[in-house]
Amino acid sequence: MPAHYRNFHNSVPWLILFLEVVFFVIFYFSDYDRDVSSISYPDFQDVNHMVIFGFGFFLTFLKRYRFSSTGFNLLIIVLGVQCSVVIEELLLFLPDWEREDDMRRIVKASLSLTAVIISIGAVLGKTNPVQLSLMTVVEMVAFHMTRWMHTRFLQISDNISMMHVHLFGAYFGLAAASRFSEPLPGSEKNASTPKSDLLSMLGTVFLWVFWPSFNSVIGENKIKAISNTYFALAVSTVTAFMLSALITKDGKFKMTHIHSAVLAGGVAVGYAAHSIKYPWIAMILGLLASVITILGSYCLPRCLNPVLKIHDTSGVHFTFGLPSMLGALAHVVLLVIENWTNIPRLCYLVMIYIWAFFLTMDVALITGFITGFILNLKLFKTIPVSKYFEDQFYWEFPHLAVGY
Amino acid sequence: MPAHYRNFHNSVPWLILFLEVVFFVIFYFSDYDRDVSSISYPDFQDVNHMVIFGFGFFLTFLKRYRFSSTGFNLLIIVLGVQCSVVIEELLLFLPDWEREDDMRRIVKASLSLTAVIISIGAVLGKTNPVQLSLMTVVEMVAFHMTRWMHTRFLQISDNISMMHVHLFGAYFGLAAASRFSEPLPGSEKNASTPKSDLLSMLGTVFLWVFWPSFNSVIGENKIKAISNTYFALAVSTVTAFMLSALITKDGKFKMTHIHSAVLAGGVAVGYAAHSIKYPWIAMILGLLASVITILGSYCLPRCLNPVLKIHDTSGVHFTFGLPSMLGALAHVVLLVIENWTNIPRLCYLVMIYIWAFFLTMDVALITGFITGFILNLKLFKTIPVSKYFEDQFYWEFPHLAVGY
Amino acid sequence: MPAHYRNFHNSVPWLILFLEVVFFVIFYFSDYDRDVSSISYPDFQDVNHMVIFGFGFFLTFLKRYRFSSTGFNLLIIVLGVQCSVVIEELLLFLPDWEREDDMRRIVKASLSLTAVIISIGAVLGKTNPVQLSLMTVVEMVAFHMTRWMHTRFLQISDNISMMHVHLFGAYFGLAAASRFSEPLPGSEKNASTPKSDLLSMLGTVFLWVFWPSFNSVIGENKIKAISNTYFALAVSTVTAFMLSALITKDGKFKMTHIHSAVLAGGVAVGYAAHSIKYPWIAMILGLLASVITILGSYCLPRCLNPVLKIHDTSGVHFTFGLPSMLGALAHVVLLVIENWTNIPRLCYLVMIYIWAFFLTMDVALITGFITGFILNLKLFKTIPVSKYFEDQFYWEFPHLAVGY
Repeated sequence: MPAHYRNFHNSVPWLILFLEVVFFVIFYFSDYDRDVSSISYPDFQDVNHMVIFGFGFFLTFLKRYRFSSTGFNLLIIVLGVQCSVVIEELLLFLPDWEREDDMRRIVKASLSLTAVIISIGAVLGKTNPVQLSLMTVVEMVAFHMTRWMHTRFLQISDNISMMHVHLFGAYFGLAAASRFSEPLPGSEKNASTPKSDLLSMLGTVFLWVFWPSFNSVIGENKIKAISNTYFALAVSTVTAFMLSALITKDGKFKMTHIHSAVLAGGVAVGYAAHSIKYPWIAMILGLLASVITILGSYCLPRCLNPVLKIHDTSGVHFTFGLPSMLGALAHVVLLVIENWTNIPRLCYLVMIYIWAFFLTMDVALITGFITGFILNLKLFKTIPVSKYFEDQFYWEFPHLAVGY
Repeated sequence: MPAHYRNFHNSVPWLILFLEVVFFVIFYFSDYDRDVSSISYPDFQDVNHMVIFGFGFFLTFLKRYRFSSTGFNLLIIVLGVQCSVVIEELLLFLPDWEREDDMRRIVKASLSLTAVIISIGAVLGKTNPVQLSLMTVVEMVAFHMTRWMHTRFLQISDNISMMHVHLFGAYFGLAAASRFSEPLPGSEKNASTPKSDLLSMLGTVFLWVFWPSFNSVIGENKIKAISNTYFALAVSTVTAFMLSALITKDGKFKMTHIHSAVLAGGVAVGYAAHSIKYPWIAMILGLLASVITILGSYCLPRCLNPVLKIHDTSGVHFTFGLPSMLGALAHVVLLVIENWTNIPRLCYLVMIYIWAFFLTMDVALITGFITGFILNLKLFKTIPVSKYFEDQFYWEFPHLAVGY
Repeated sequence: MPAHYRNFHNSVPWLILFLEVVFFVIFYFSDYDRDVSSISYPDFQDVNHMVIFGFGFFLTFLKRYRFSSTGFNLLIIVLGVQCSVVIEELLLFLPDWEREDDMRRIVKASLSLTAVIISIGAVLGKTNPVQLSLMTVVEMVAFHMTRWMHTRFLQISDNISMMHVHLFGAYFGLAAASRFSEPLPGSEKNASTPKSDLLSMLGTVFLWVFWPSFNSVIGENKIKAISNTYFALAVSTVTAFMLSALITKDGKFKMTHIHSAVLAGGVAVGYAAHSIKYPWIAMILGLLASVITILGSYCLPRCLNPVLKIHDTSGVHFTFGLPSMLGALAHVVLLVIENWTNIPRLCYLVMIYIWAFFLTMDVALITGFITGFILNLKLFKTIPVSKYFEDQFYWEFPHLAVGY
């Protein structure tokens, strides 16, 4: 292995150490209430379970990248949670940012990290741990700034602002992915096996079960949010099977369709989960989200991605990006229907949420693009295309992994 | 592939769509309280986790049917939950059926679906998704009617009525299975590998851990129900290992024994979990349940099944049927012991529970048999015996699945 | 197979039956409150999930010993929980032991069993079920006696006494392991494959997520304990990646490092989780614990183990033993810092905790050594070295397990 790559491996520990020292220092000077909690412990657990276990195994579909998928996911989450807590601490110097208790900060950090994990999904298998760590820090800063702007200038509630996390993550990731090389055509490593698909299904099912926690943990009207999310997920699952059989040759199901589309309802219903009055509205949203995801998974890699030269490894555009856009739109439409008797208030609300949407998109795309650009500087020892999607590049294997 | 099978694939999406439209319409006209919940969210989560994750992986033991086991399980559950909620809504037109809140309805729907999943276990690998969906709808209707009769005519409490779910599921499934062809003798697909057994163990352990939630979620005396279920499960696990070593050649353990028998105690103790006063009673019940399951797993496939020409793929007869019968019997015996000073009341109670038992069995066997008969009509494009237990018949595989 | 081994297989069921009969009898005569619980059900579930699912899959890294790892783990836990409940019942005859409610007894039994599981990790693959069952009973008795001495003579709180469980388990296991033969040099069965490492990662991630429950379930100041444990785990995870890259050739990560060291912070912070005031202290503890674990995993098998002729299959010495020692030390140091103005009280506290530490170590080492000695008597039909780490010695396989 040439010196070039050895260098990259050598810089991993020092970067992590540097970050940890920064975190230690800021933690040392920070001060907050540690004896009360506004989050119940089971909710805290659910969110942790979801980001660490659920996403960790959701991303294991690449046949030779399973150690990295689960391992780096764990690393990114623990780095990112500390980073997010530290950023929240620093944001207290800005106006309109409230001090929160310990457990709530960890929960909000975990929720925010979903953005990073989604973005990593877009460049899965192409980034080394140095790039991943930097991306985590930059994206956490950008996302927190977006949320601060939501709160400060648009007075959007904490929970709805947080639900832009999928949108932010997906478009940040796509913008970054546009700066990475595409894999070699015909690369057999950029593929799943039935075994890795099954492992990924395990993660998907976990995410599915915990999605109602995700949508309800920090908002009001928890019970309504839970049942709306459940029904949206249920209908999007049914729709996923229906459409998968329709658009596949011979009417068979395709596991990748199921993986992406069963969660679409949960993503789309996020913005409005607390306010949707009737379950059938959540169900229709779930149906539309699943339709848009499956159509996206059919069209985007064929039409849009080749034009924009984006290679989106785990399909975050249609899995999280499109349903999230649909959800934002649906949220506005529902507001219009609900407030149409009160035009001034209506205009105000619609304006605010549209602004929030475009603000999120803009920040995500711009910072994502810049991040992608920076990460591909020679400085960060980018990995060669031939080593994409390859565990053995990062992990010492017990033996020659025959049959892995 | 001849047109015959293509037809079946083509009819899947339309059937699902039709069901969804019906659900939408009924949901649209339904009305209920969505702001309160009589179920705590962690309990709600446990039940979801159990049916979606636990049963999904419990049934993955067939080596070439793992995508279908987890995938179709998810599909059936989300279809079934909606179906069950809709049926509960329609049952409100009958007397003596109470309106319930949103989360409780989902929980009860998930509990009821256990019947469907158990029945599917009996015909695992032999049914196409069209048949599965129809079976779900029919079985949900039959089970809800049984429960309505329990409530209306026998005044049995909601919780004890629900605990007939295993009994109903097992005998409905067996009756349906009697109408399906037996697999070809020597079929190598109707087998497990160590890997698929391990995956199934993962699901089993999940079910084990969540079984106390199952038995306690909708009843009174939660704490007692939890610890009784725990002790019953513990003893049935110990007994499973003990008996497995006794009846196997060379005194080795057999994974399929462990899979079935560790859960037997939880099934058997279900009826009486809330009322058993001392843990040793639950423990003895766990022991007997495990004994009956392991002996059943030894005798039934050798003696009963060939006579009745039933092929019970995942052994639901001894895994759920026999322990559930034992539990019903034990429940009556415990009632006798407790109320022997008050003969009139005793006779009344014994009568009621014996009626409930036979009512459940009768409805399950009759509707199961009819369902099995209907599902095997040419109309539903039954699958040929040579395609039994075969994922590739339903799923598009990423590549030629070598070594799968 | 010679008669010698058949005998051992034949004695398993009878031993288990004998134990169960003893448990039944004591349960029959015991009496306690079953209608209240001082433990919330979600906490109860978390602990169960952790010991049954988490540890069950944590130990599946040996490539040919995965059935036994999960299966025997389940057996040992259900035997051990009953055994522990029975011992608690008998301890009531001693002074200073309080009667507790049902669910709390199960939770404490599960926590205590961690000691047994850790000890089993040290001799993983070398013990037959007869030896495992005996070891469980002996270790449970020894651990409960230690805890009784903690309470009676040192007046240590229940929670801190319980946190000696890792220390006890690790050194009991090591002492016992010193009496077992080392595996044949070059044995290819004493190794992991990428697949088994991934399965073990699944268990590890589960343990990680539930560790805050472990440290907070029976103590005071739950919220503080949870967030301290979380931060300690987070930093030890980051440190694990950092050090793994530093000490491995080519700067690659090693999965076994990650498995051991990500949990080190949780183990080390256990003693003081309820009292640490600032998260940065927990974080530093997490960092040190991870450092000590990774250095231990590098040095111990090279330096200490060959001298003492100990073969520690799953590395419990550095995974649980060293972080636990560090935690005990840190607990004392923190006490010194906190109470340095009040010298008499300080001396008293320091004395007590140092006594508790040495008491635990002594009892663990002595009883472990004696247990290891007894278990290797001919009477218990020890298994031959050539059959170490071999599922097929205990389990009947569905077919010839090609490619397992």
